[in-house]
Amino acid sequence: MGLAIDLNCDMGESFGAWKMGQDEDILPYVTSANIACGFHAGDAATMRKTVAAALRHGVALGAHPGLPDLVGFGRRNMDVSAQDVYDIVIIQVGALAAVAASQGGKLHHVKAHGALYNMAARNGELATAIAKAVHDIDSTLLLYALAGSVQVKAAEDMGLAVAQEVFADRSYQSDGSLTPRKQAGAMIEDPAISIKQVLRMVQEGKVATQQGSDVNVRADTLCIHGDQPDAVVFAQAIRKALGENGVQVRAI
Amino acid sequence: MGLAIDLNCDMGESFGAWKMGQDEDILPYVTSANIACGFHAGDAATMRKTVAAALRHGVALGAHPGLPDLVGFGRRNMDVSAQDVYDIVIIQVGALAAVAASQGGKLHHVKAHGALYNMAARNGELATAIAKAVHDIDSTLLLYALAGSVQVKAAEDMGLAVAQEVFADRSYQSDGSLTPRKQAGAMIEDPAISIKQVLRMVQEGKVATQQGSDVNVRADTLCIHGDQPDAVVFAQAIRKALGENGVQVRAI
Amino acid sequence: MGLAIDLNCDMGESFGAWKMGQDEDILPYVTSANIACGFHAGDAATMRKTVAAALRHGVALGAHPGLPDLVGFGRRNMDVSAQDVYDIVIIQVGALAAVAASQGGKLHHVKAHGALYNMAARNGELATAIAKAVHDIDSTLLLYALAGSVQVKAAEDMGLAVAQEVFADRSYQSDGSLTPRKQAGAMIEDPAISIKQVLRMVQEGKVATQQGSDVNVRADTLCIHGDQPDAVVFAQAIRKALGENGVQVRAI
Amino acid sequence: MGLAIDLNCDMGESFGAWKMGQDEDILPYVTSANIACGFHAGDAATMRKTVAAALRHGVALGAHPGLPDLVGFGRRNMDVSAQDVYDIVIIQVGALAAVAASQGGKLHHVKAHGALYNMAARNGELATAIAKAVHDIDSTLLLYALAGSVQVKAAEDMGLAVAQEVFADRSYQSDGSLTPRKQAGAMIEDPAISIKQVLRMVQEGKVATQQGSDVNVRADTLCIHGDQPDAVVFAQAIRKALGENGVQVRAI
Repeated sequence: MGLAIDLNCDMGESFGAWKMGQDEDILPYVTSANIACGFHAGDAATMRKTVAAALRHGVALGAHPGLPDLVGFGRRNMDVSAQDVYDIVIIQVGALAAVAASQGGKLHHVKAHGALYNMAARNGELATAIAKAVHDIDSTLLLYALAGSVQVKAAEDMGLAVAQEVFADRSYQSDGSLTPRKQAGAMIEDPAISIKQVLRMVQEGKVATQQGSDVNVRADTLCIHGDQPDAVVFAQAIRKALGENGVQVRAI
Repeated sequence: MGLAIDLNCDMGESFGAWKMGQDEDILPYVTSANIACGFHAGDAATMRKTVAAALRHGVALGAHPGLPDLVGFGRRNMDVSAQDVYDIVIIQVGALAAVAASQGGKLHHVKAHGALYNMAARNGELATAIAKAVHDIDSTLLLYALAGSVQVKAAEDMGLAVAQEVFADRSYQSDGSLTPRKQAGAMIEDPAISIKQVLRMVQEGKVATQQGSDVNVRADTLCIHGDQPDAVVFAQAIRKALGENGVQVRAI
Repeated sequence: MGLAIDLNCDMGESFGAWKMGQDEDILPYVTSANIACGFHAGDAATMRKTVAAALRHGVALGAHPGLPDLVGFGRRNMDVSAQDVYDIVIIQVGALAAVAASQGGKLHHVKAHGALYNMAARNGELATAIAKAVHDIDSTLLLYALAGSVQVKAAEDMGLAVAQEVFADRSYQSDGSLTPRKQAGAMIEDPAISIKQVLRMVQEGKVATQQGSDVNVRADTLCIHGDQPDAVVFAQAIRKALGENGVQVRAI
Repeated sequence: MGLAIDLNCDMGESFGAWKMGQDEDILPYVTSANIACGFHAGDAATMRKTVAAALRHGVALGAHPGLPDLVGFGRRNMDVSAQDVYDIVIIQVGALAAVAASQGGKLHHVKAHGALYNMAARNGELATAIAKAVHDIDSTLLLYALAGSVQVKAAEDMGLAVAQEVFADRSYQSDGSLTPRKQAGAMIEDPAISIKQVLRMVQEGKVATQQGSDVNVRADTLCIHGDQPDAVVFAQAIRKALGENGVQVRAI
């Protein structure tokens, strides 16, 4: 069996009268969707429409739970306890699972959103809380987590299958973490370099770091940022490059 | 098989730092719990604790979805569309189903809350939206609905099993509806009269109306108002009266 | 002194990460802004930015309070009491007044939003509640109300100065009300007809109705719908037509 | 002029159908009220009722703005920016100022709530944001801040009058900060010791610390915790003790 990778994208981040993202345009190019569950974005109607669109495109359904911070879009860290995190993941994943079931679909994975994702990548207690919530709802669900992070280990310890996530447009540090956005060189602006980074991660399991050395990385799934103006163009380009290099694109 | 009735009570209506109800005190006397799902009351932690308490007492778990009106406790009618209602019931029931599953429990029924319950009792379109939402999540779930109301018919048409709900402390009209709260004589204050009304509903399938005549009523489940100071005393009294009259108290 | 009219536009209806409207583009063409206050739209940052933009353009500052229904954008009627309405108008207007004051500005008017506006146009009790709230905060504030509606009378009875509001893109009924949106012919699609209707309202104080007859209307302020794609083009066209016909455009 | 102190208490922390605190019972014993503004607690109706009660008792009106975290009661730290803090303080203080004005009252002070208070006591940037917001609304408003904290300095630098706040039931560290709640000995359980600590702070401007030494403290206002069962008893006791020691109790 040859090389393969999943392309995932955050979706369903509209809210009521407010639209966000270009879900319909990006769906043809991705293989899994992380759908907002109402805490940082995504009201009940948006959840229904997004699940329907993902099913129509044969894209794997994921829940994308976030912190209870609508005005901050779940991007501000909060001093939530592990119990808080467990509780809010349970009800968000449950809500999306019901939307999926109501349309004859089934949830495939869970990926934490924004600040919750970032906190869980570093904080073992919060990572375990997420993993336990997912496990307690349905232990066959996959968990998407930052490649090489604390959350990968926490989920594996919980007995969950994990998809390790990599980024095309972010540079890496020698410890395998992403360069913080506020630091110079955090973002990779050139699509050609992004694509090269992805190919190398998939083919060699390595990524160059800002420190010059390589670091090992496992690339099960690649995050496509659907909120960027050129998201569709990039998604097409990365698919083309993967195809030309014999890397299959499919959900895990 | 002898006569039987279910005693249900709304629960889990605390929110964050705010406490409401006396769930632990009332749980020993009821057989099913309608648990708030976050829209009118009930945050994620309260949902977890309430499900745990209900499971501990062997009480049947119900989801209690409401309108998106936290400050109004879901008691103010809103011009929601049938699609709105379908969507908000799906995600609320789904959230509670996940809480139940995470604790090894299983949802048993759904009962709409407050204004949503009242609107669905009269409005067939909204009643059908609730029934369809419940059906699309899990067609084996019971729906609790006002005895004799439009919602009973809508749920049966959808193929759902229905528990018809009666009230001990409300007087009835000749069309089988409850006397509106704002009208004189709407509330039955005397527990002895309440208990007599319940016994007659269970034993004879009839209730006296404010117009003097009797009307037929099917009493599958009796609503215990847990937010009233004497709720526990009343629950004890009604159980005693039912027992002395050979009526079994059990979930459906 | 010649004829004059105010052009008002709803603004500041973004929320958190979600953008709505084209405030910066429309501000050069209007003379007063109705700024959302957080209940149906408009978080604290959006309020600040919108007030700043309006001050920069010398546009009169208005508070635009709505129902507590973020997901429904304040467009769904709710069974709020007169006391509810009084209370929510007080705190929304107060919030915007503080934003204005913090930037050296001063609130000029209040216009209710969406379902609250529509309910107050027909329901005297709710109209009085809004008028009383505005009066109790600052009796020199203007109230914008649907021309000829119950809300105009309620505000005048409260001693408030009222700006009667007309619409360019809506047809009228013989009782002076707007044709309900769901009815055929409610919307005027042709800008030329819209402009003619406005000119006649300003110059003659009359508007043709769907019943064929004319009805009297007082046009103090015209609502520009900023959420429509051609809003800027229409605003330019109406200003040009008003200017050519000697009608001054200015806040009241 | 003799010694004097203000007794302040957080109030108006009910929300919708949920009651909290014992405002009516405690109002006779305090001289200033910090009233929740809707973000961590306090809906529009509660704000109105609480302002009315405070005015009835002749107690000074304060706004008590918090973080946007209703379910967490504003007690969880959040990574809010200084701009976020400025914005949310403006609209919360503005909302309460309008409630006061609508009842013929006038705002007297501002005190940040919970996590916002604690963050501002240590973080100069956030402290300055609060001070600037208060200043920009009305530079004659007092700011209540933890005695000796960064927030005192930030407010003074902004030109605001500051009331330094002390606690009866908390022990102090040698740097003048409160012992963190999670540390042993943080809470003073014995009312007699609490009262002694307060008297010494008022009379000598000193408080004993957990490290054994004394530290200087300025006691302009004392926080009474209204959410504790014995709050009224303690308020009576402290007033009695202050009176017997010739310390006047009055708002600043």
